[in-house]
Amino acid sequence: MGVVQKYGGSSVATIEKIKAVAACIAEVKQSGEDIVVVASAMGKTTNALIDLARQTGGADNARELDALMATGEQTTISLLAMVLQGLGVAAVSLTGGQCGFVTNDNHSRAKIVDIRADTLKKHIAEGKVVVVAGFQGVDAQGNITTLGRGGSDTTAVALAAKLGWDCEIYTDVESIFTIDPRRCPGAKPLHHITYDEMMEMAALGAGVLETRSVELAKKYHVRLYLGKSLERDKTKGTYIMEKDSSFEYMPVTGISLSDTCAVLSIAGAPADGSCVSSLFAIISKLDINVDLISQQLLDDGTIALSFSCKPEDATLLRKTCAKNGFPYELALQSTLAKISLVGVGMITHSGIANRAFEILYQNGIRYYHISTSEISLSITVDAVNLQRAARLLADAFELCIAA
Amino acid sequence: MGVVQKYGGSSVATIEKIKAVAACIAEVKQSGEDIVVVASAMGKTTNALIDLARQTGGADNARELDALMATGEQTTISLLAMVLQGLGVAAVSLTGGQCGFVTNDNHSRAKIVDIRADTLKKHIAEGKVVVVAGFQGVDAQGNITTLGRGGSDTTAVALAAKLGWDCEIYTDVESIFTIDPRRCPGAKPLHHITYDEMMEMAALGAGVLETRSVELAKKYHVRLYLGKSLERDKTKGTYIMEKDSSFEYMPVTGISLSDTCAVLSIAGAPADGSCVSSLFAIISKLDINVDLISQQLLDDGTIALSFSCKPEDATLLRKTCAKNGFPYELALQSTLAKISLVGVGMITHSGIANRAFEILYQNGIRYYHISTSEISLSITVDAVNLQRAARLLADAFELCIAA
Repeated sequence: MGVVQKYGGSSVATIEKIKAVAACIAEVKQSGEDIVVVASAMGKTTNALIDLARQTGGADNARELDALMATGEQTTISLLAMVLQGLGVAAVSLTGGQCGFVTNDNHSRAKIVDIRADTLKKHIAEGKVVVVAGFQGVDAQGNITTLGRGGSDTTAVALAAKLGWDCEIYTDVESIFTIDPRRCPGAKPLHHITYDEMMEMAALGAGVLETRSVELAKKYHVRLYLGKSLERDKTKGTYIMEKDSSFEYMPVTGISLSDTCAVLSIAGAPADGSCVSSLFAIISKLDINVDLISQQLLDDGTIALSFSCKPEDATLLRKTCAKNGFPYELALQSTLAKISLVGVGMITHSGIANRAFEILYQNGIRYYHISTSEISLSITVDAVNLQRAARLLADAFELCIAA
Repeated sequence: MGVVQKYGGSSVATIEKIKAVAACIAEVKQSGEDIVVVASAMGKTTNALIDLARQTGGADNARELDALMATGEQTTISLLAMVLQGLGVAAVSLTGGQCGFVTNDNHSRAKIVDIRADTLKKHIAEGKVVVVAGFQGVDAQGNITTLGRGGSDTTAVALAAKLGWDCEIYTDVESIFTIDPRRCPGAKPLHHITYDEMMEMAALGAGVLETRSVELAKKYHVRLYLGKSLERDKTKGTYIMEKDSSFEYMPVTGISLSDTCAVLSIAGAPADGSCVSSLFAIISKLDINVDLISQQLLDDGTIALSFSCKPEDATLLRKTCAKNGFPYELALQSTLAKISLVGVGMITHSGIANRAFEILYQNGIRYYHISTSEISLSITVDAVNLQRAARLLADAFELCIAA
C-alpha cells in the first residue's frame, strides 16, 4: 500500500519549505510506505507567470498559456526530487505528460481522459518516491494542458484512485471547519465530513478543496485527508469519506459563505421553455457555473426565472446575451452574498430550514433567494448582512465553540 | 523555402526584447517566407535555475537538473508565441520533446539521435510560425534531456538540416571578427568564414558559436548566418559556409585567443604506448577535451608527452590519475595562454608559421608548445604576454583596421 500526498504552492514556496516537506516525505518512505507526491508551483509563481503572459498581448492564447503555466510545477518537482536525493531518498520527477495524464484539449480547464501509469508504476516498483507535477497533462496530440485552478488536488486524487491508495492533501489550513474561522472565531474543526457535504461546502464557497477532486474521490472511493503542511498529527486534520458510524450527530455540519454573488432575473418570459433553453445554451457555451436556479409560473401564464453566479460571469453573460439578440432583459442584483447550511443530517431534520428562517427574521435580516438540495440550504442576503447572519446561524447550530 | 532563426538568452531577456524579436519574425513571415524560431531561456534564467538547484543539496542529479533547466526555454517559447499571436501572426510553441527531438540519455550533454518532425511539419504546413525550445529533447524513455551549454545553436542547425533551410543565429555580437574586438580594437568583421575555420575558431576559444552546431552545419550543408539580434542588414553579419570564389584572399582569417590554458607533461614514459593509452582512457572517461597534444621520442628511448586543457580539467585529471594509481607524474604549467591563427589559406602559405615565430621572437615573447592542423597554428605563451602577442600577430596578418 501507499499514499499520495499533495502539497500546495504555499507549502513549497521556497527551497527551505521544500526541504521541510521533503523531510516529511522521507519519514513516510522510511516507514516502509510507498509514496507519490503531487506538487504545485512554488508560492505565487503561477500568478507571476500570468502577469508575464499579460504583458505579451497574446495571453488569450490558452494553448501557450498552458505551456507557460506548466513550467511552474515542473520547476517544483525537479527541485523537490533533488532535495529528496540530497537526503538519500531515491526520487524521480514526472511532468503531467510523463506521468501519463492524457486530457481533452480544453486548454486551461482540461479534463483527465486517461492515466497511462506504466512509467509511474515502474518507478514505484523500483522503490522510488515519484514526484508528479500537479495541474497538468497532455492532450492526444501532445499539447500541454492544464486542469484549471485547484487542479493539483484533482491530479492527486486521480493518482490515488488509479493506484488504489489514500490521498492526503496538505495545505496551509489545519482542517475543514464548520464555518470560515476568519469570519467566525471559535469555528469548530471537523474531524470527519462526507464527500457530499464537502462538495456542497466547496461548491458553495468554502474554497479549501476543489469540488472536482472531491467528486472524483467519491466516485473512486478514495479516502481523502486534508491537513496542515508539516503537521504529523493526523487527529488534527479532516477525513473526507463516506458516512460511517463514527460520525458525530450534527444536523448541520458546516456553513459555507460566498461574499459576492450576483443574481440575474427574467420576468415575463413564455412558459414554453424557449427562453430558458436559449439562455442556458449561452450559459453553457460561456462555461459559466450557475446555481440557486429558481423558476416560477406566474398568474399571467408567464414565468419568472432567477439564478446566481459570480459577478464577473454575470457581466459577461449580460453582454453576450445583448450581442446575440437574446430578447429578454436580464435584471441584475449585484450586492448580494450567499450563505449555505450543509449537512447530511438535514434531510432527516425538517426543522432546520424553519429554524434558520426564524433566526434571520427575528434579527431583522432580509433574505431573498432560497434554494435547497438534499443536504444543503442556500439563501441570499444583502452582502452587508453576511457576517452577522453567519455568526447567528453558526451559534444556532452549535458550529462554534461557545465564547 | 524557409529559415530557422535562433535567438539567444540576451535577445529575449525581457518581454520588451521578446516583442522586438517578434516584430522581426513577423516581418519575415509576412514577406512570405516560412520560419521556425529557436529560443533560449530568458537572460540569466538558466543560471538562476542552477543556483536554485544548488540549494537543494541534490543538484548532482543530472536527470532532475535537466527537467529543471528545460523550464527556462519552455517559458520563453510560450511567451514568444503569445507575443506573435498578439501581433496577429499565427504561432505555436513546441518543447524539445514536442518538436520530436529524441536524444540519448546522457543528461546535461545529450546528443540528438533523431528528430521526428511530423508535428513540426504539420504546423509549418498550416502556415504557423513554430517556436521551438532550444537546448532540449527527450530520451527514448521520455525523460527530459538537455544538450549542454550552447545547445540551442545545435537545435537550430539540426532543424535547418532536417528542413533543408538556412539557419540564422542571432546573438549580441555583430559578426565574427578576425580577432576578439574587446582585445584588439579595430578587429575586422568577417563577411564569410568557412565551416572549418569557424570550428577552429570556436574550438580554440572564440566562443561565439558552439562547435557542435558548426560541425552539424558542415555535415548537412546548412548555410549559417550569424548576426546581431534585430539587425536587418545582412551585410553586417557573417556567413558560415563552404569556401567559394566570393571569399577574399586572406591566408589568416582570424586569431582565436584562450586566456587560460593548462599544459600537462609526462617525461620518461616507455615508448610502447602503454602510458599514453591508459592516460587517454582516463581522459576520455572524464570527458575532458584536450588539444595541443604533442609527443616526442627522446634519445634515451623514452617519450615526452604534453597536452593542454582547461585548468579546472587539469586539476580533475591529476586527482583522478593519482587516485587510480597512474604511475607517471603529470607536471602542470598553469600560467599559460593559447593563441591560434586560423585560415583555410594557411595550408598553401607555408610562410605563415615562420612569420609568426619571427614576430614573437623579435618582440621578446617566449612561446612554448606548438601544434598545427591544416588550417590552424596554435602556440602557448605566458598569459601575461597574450594581449601583446595577439596585437602583434593581428597587425602582421592585417586582421585589424590600421589605427
